[in-house]
Amino acid sequence: MFYMIISEVKTVAKKIKQIAIYGKGGIGKSTTTSNLSAALSKLGFKVMQFGCDPKSDSTNTLRDGEYIPTVLDTLREKSVVKANDVIFQGFNGIYCVEAGGPAPGVGCAGRGIITAVELFKQQKAFEALDLDYVIYDVLGDVVCGGFAMPIREGIAEHVFTVSSSDFMSIYASNNLFKGIQKYSNAGGALLGGVIANSISAGYSKEIVDDFAERTKTQIMEYIPRSITVTQSELRGKTTIEAAPDSAQAKVYMSLAEKMAAHEISHTPAPLELTDLRAWASSWSDQLIALETGVVVGGGAAGI
Amino acid sequence: MFYMIISEVKTVAKKIKQIAIYGKGGIGKSTTTSNLSAALSKLGFKVMQFGCDPKSDSTNTLRDGEYIPTVLDTLREKSVVKANDVIFQGFNGIYCVEAGGPAPGVGCAGRGIITAVELFKQQKAFEALDLDYVIYDVLGDVVCGGFAMPIREGIAEHVFTVSSSDFMSIYASNNLFKGIQKYSNAGGALLGGVIANSISAGYSKEIVDDFAERTKTQIMEYIPRSITVTQSELRGKTTIEAAPDSAQAKVYMSLAEKMAAHEISHTPAPLELTDLRAWASSWSDQLIALETGVVVGGGAAGI
Repeated sequence: MFYMIISEVKTVAKKIKQIAIYGKGGIGKSTTTSNLSAALSKLGFKVMQFGCDPKSDSTNTLRDGEYIPTVLDTLREKSVVKANDVIFQGFNGIYCVEAGGPAPGVGCAGRGIITAVELFKQQKAFEALDLDYVIYDVLGDVVCGGFAMPIREGIAEHVFTVSSSDFMSIYASNNLFKGIQKYSNAGGALLGGVIANSISAGYSKEIVDDFAERTKTQIMEYIPRSITVTQSELRGKTTIEAAPDSAQAKVYMSLAEKMAAHEISHTPAPLELTDLRAWASSWSDQLIALETGVVVGGGAAGI
Repeated sequence: MFYMIISEVKTVAKKIKQIAIYGKGGIGKSTTTSNLSAALSKLGFKVMQFGCDPKSDSTNTLRDGEYIPTVLDTLREKSVVKANDVIFQGFNGIYCVEAGGPAPGVGCAGRGIITAVELFKQQKAFEALDLDYVIYDVLGDVVCGGFAMPIREGIAEHVFTVSSSDFMSIYASNNLFKGIQKYSNAGGALLGGVIANSISAGYSKEIVDDFAERTKTQIMEYIPRSITVTQSELRGKTTIEAAPDSAQAKVYMSLAEKMAAHEISHTPAPLELTDLRAWASSWSDQLIALETGVVVGGGAAGI
């Protein structure tokens, strides 16, 4: 059903758009990335999704729920690995790669990304596949040196974060912004914006909007919670594949169009930790007031 | 209200019980750890809680919601740091430390733990405080070499994991078990058991029980979801402090008694990744069957 394919090297190099999507584990990062990849492929682009979460399940829903061997696992098994040993095709011809992680307790968790990217670079794998997009799906809980590698080395050109209105998700995004800011003058990747996920109640939109405004970035798309997504994933598929006519699929198509149109990223203005905490507290106070019925400035909270 | 205190070095050394508690971010790791510390202090023990999450908010609810300067931040500010510059007292005399994290995008996320532990060791800070317990609260999303340090170096004697029945939480626990297993013959820490958190519906207990049985470990305590915990934390307090007579506080007291009685830890038997995925799928199938009303073997799922 799926094939490993590397087409011949084209003589005319085209510009490959490389995008890194960071987000806290559990926030819907891989769901969003896979639907984005699927939607971009529907728009006619040649896409590679590059999973950089040590859990190695980024590309599952592009391959009917199947797992693929990771780059690190393959390297552990044989000394010489060709790029096409670790590139698998999925839905609509999307190329799927999982970097993999180190053995638990040993070494740097970012090792998979570094190793996989080096391998592909040496073998000019992206050029050989005539790709339009490479989308890195990166765990953003801890923006340590390893996980920051696609930013630091400027491998990705544009970085996006998937964030809900939960504080821990916003905290992770703010830390990501700090990492981007740090390398922004040294050829590092810049920030494209926030993909706001699990946005349903009025106040959740207000919270992410407020965060984006304060950190001088933009919201690329608001993605609502959706049972369609859950149902699609239980079938091992993206919503784009399983329910292409659903309202949720239209949201992902809209995101893909905006990503395709996105040209210029910027250096974000992350909040200092004390400011971020104060900001979170003020929102917490507002939400408590709403819950207890002491509604002051309810308009600001979207009710 | 709170004081930094280091008492004089005692001449008779007593055995300090050092415990590491790992868990996925957002799973209730710091909530559980802080309530455990508070409960142990109520039992008359001298406790230090050592926050090892780069977010540096482990000890907040022991200090009326206040943040304390981290070891790494303090080291960045001055060249010589004394242990008592970074030890703060909180509820019921509990000593609070936050290791802190590296600057986002730079270096190893485990650096804070390593640095802080070294500092305390050199200055014999634990002995000086005549502690009964040191409890390390460690982010367990990525068990890389840095975060595995308390296990690898045998700094902690017993390791526990806080886990809900969510797959990502169980995945993180299983990875932790792999890390423990790896160093179990080299003087590393051993596994005490699982602290099952957010256990409410019947099937969530069955899932964690099944996981514990398959990995040859035990459940230390089942902690239900509780609005009392949320209310206490909104006031910047543990449940032990804010609602000592609540049913939830009794659960934490029971956990503390079991931890105090716990003497012998073991090498766990983590599942291989493919087995873990198959196990999760079989549970997923059972839950879908329950939801859609096709109840086969409902007894096994606790309904």
